[in-house]
Amino acid sequence: MKIYFDCLQCFVRQTLDAVRLFTADEKVHEKVLRYMFNEVGNMDFYQSPPEIAQRIHRTIRELLNDNDPYRSIKDSSNRMAMNLFPELEKRIEQSNNPFELALRYAIAGNIIDFGVHSRIEESLVHETLYRAEQDYISPESIEDFKHAVDKADNIVYLGDNCGEIVFDRLLLEQLPHGKITYVVRGKPIINDVTMADARFAGITELVKVIDNGSDAPGTVPEDCSPEFIDLFNNADLIIAKGQGNYESLSTVDKNIYFVFMAKCKVVAQDIGCEVGSFVLKSNSFEIIKST
Amino acid sequence: MKIYFDCLQCFVRQTLDAVRLFTADEKVHEKVLRYMFNEVGNMDFYQSPPEIAQRIHRTIRELLNDNDPYRSIKDSSNRMAMNLFPELEKRIEQSNNPFELALRYAIAGNIIDFGVHSRIEESLVHETLYRAEQDYISPESIEDFKHAVDKADNIVYLGDNCGEIVFDRLLLEQLPHGKITYVVRGKPIINDVTMADARFAGITELVKVIDNGSDAPGTVPEDCSPEFIDLFNNADLIIAKGQGNYESLSTVDKNIYFVFMAKCKVVAQDIGCEVGSFVLKSNSFEIIKST
Repeated sequence: MKIYFDCLQCFVRQTLDAVRLFTADEKVHEKVLRYMFNEVGNMDFYQSPPEIAQRIHRTIRELLNDNDPYRSIKDSSNRMAMNLFPELEKRIEQSNNPFELALRYAIAGNIIDFGVHSRIEESLVHETLYRAEQDYISPESIEDFKHAVDKADNIVYLGDNCGEIVFDRLLLEQLPHGKITYVVRGKPIINDVTMADARFAGITELVKVIDNGSDAPGTVPEDCSPEFIDLFNNADLIIAKGQGNYESLSTVDKNIYFVFMAKCKVVAQDIGCEVGSFVLKSNSFEIIKST
Repeated sequence: MKIYFDCLQCFVRQTLDAVRLFTADEKVHEKVLRYMFNEVGNMDFYQSPPEIAQRIHRTIRELLNDNDPYRSIKDSSNRMAMNLFPELEKRIEQSNNPFELALRYAIAGNIIDFGVHSRIEESLVHETLYRAEQDYISPESIEDFKHAVDKADNIVYLGDNCGEIVFDRLLLEQLPHGKITYVVRGKPIINDVTMADARFAGITELVKVIDNGSDAPGTVPEDCSPEFIDLFNNADLIIAKGQGNYESLSTVDKNIYFVFMAKCKVVAQDIGCEVGSFVLKSNSFEIIKST
């Protein structure tokens, strides 16, 4: 996805969010904001949003001398999702169509995105899970996705956010484990998943997990490790969770299913759906759910 | 009101709005955005939001070589409001309490604020007028305001936005014309009113109108003309419409009634009300309506 100038206001908000997580000291907020404004003013605007966010958040972490300002938010999102996990797993087991319900929950989990939201109440997660259970999704599209999974030999599942990763486990449990590698970010960035989160969510016990070597809040191939690039090139199906992976991979010529909620106007307009839509979009550009 | 860092993201959006009104050329958007980011990065953050906005929009106008990028939006807001005027005037005439209904419409008119919104559909204005008719407002607070008007000898009514000014006329018709001076901005800034708008809305035929000599989207006394300052100092009641006038005058020691809708989180939090609230707030810090 190309950069949209509308994303710039969101980077200002993300900067404020990050520094406020670190300290209530307004002098520090001011210092980091000033630095960010000057940096963005001289930045290449024609990178994807995750590439710009990567640079901004690197600067923030350096200025704060804090490798992971979102750590406590990440932990609480993981715990919140893990508390919901047994009940959701039970509902999936008892469902007539466990694959579909697990997919729906995995999409709903993408609501836990601190790149878009400054705060996320647990009630919003409950509401989104409920909506995911109820709303119409074209059965054909889900069948297409299931067929792509069945046909593939090497599946790469690109994770996105903390909390959300627990809902990914629900879907992973419905997928052929032996064919799947789950990918986390190489270093902390916003509330994106790293290896520690994959361990916490039990993903490492279920499938092979690697990190991509990058601290972009998406998947920027030229910034990733050779190990990841090999894996990516040899995969015959990519399941890409979240807006960041969509923003960074939407123009890449691979067999990719983008699985996420369209949470901001920029992404929703790029796809041609409403904000709040549940998206399962393959490279054939198919949308299965718009609110 | 002190500056809130949250306002910075809004200035980014305002910059985009302004350049998009001027041209669809993304190279121009980029140039102005770059300039704005660098300027804000080196700006004094401890000015009021209207002071910062004043500087940013001056830069935008200079870079675009356009003295009034919002002119067409201002004209269409004025026309839209004038089309509604006869019907609203009739409703006020037929009302049991013309003063209160005119006040309610004047508050509702403040929804037409392109400092806060990128687009304003006419349906939003209708909806807000309807809400203003229906919602509870404490009768005591309106009585207090009416009493302050009756008691005052020199009333200064600080206007705010185009379109909204037509709804101000509804209230002005209920006020003692001879005691009132209506004030517009000295130069174009966002969609704020200037003398041309006061003429279009018929305000100049109703009461004395002066401009304040300033291009701030609020009332920054040190930036205003000596004529305005004389008027302001000698007034025994100021009716200040809109968020910008609140943001720039909330700490000034005068008998001021702030009359507006709290349309953003920053202002709503400063006051202690919900976003969307109708506000009539005197210096005794009284709120008459929260949604």
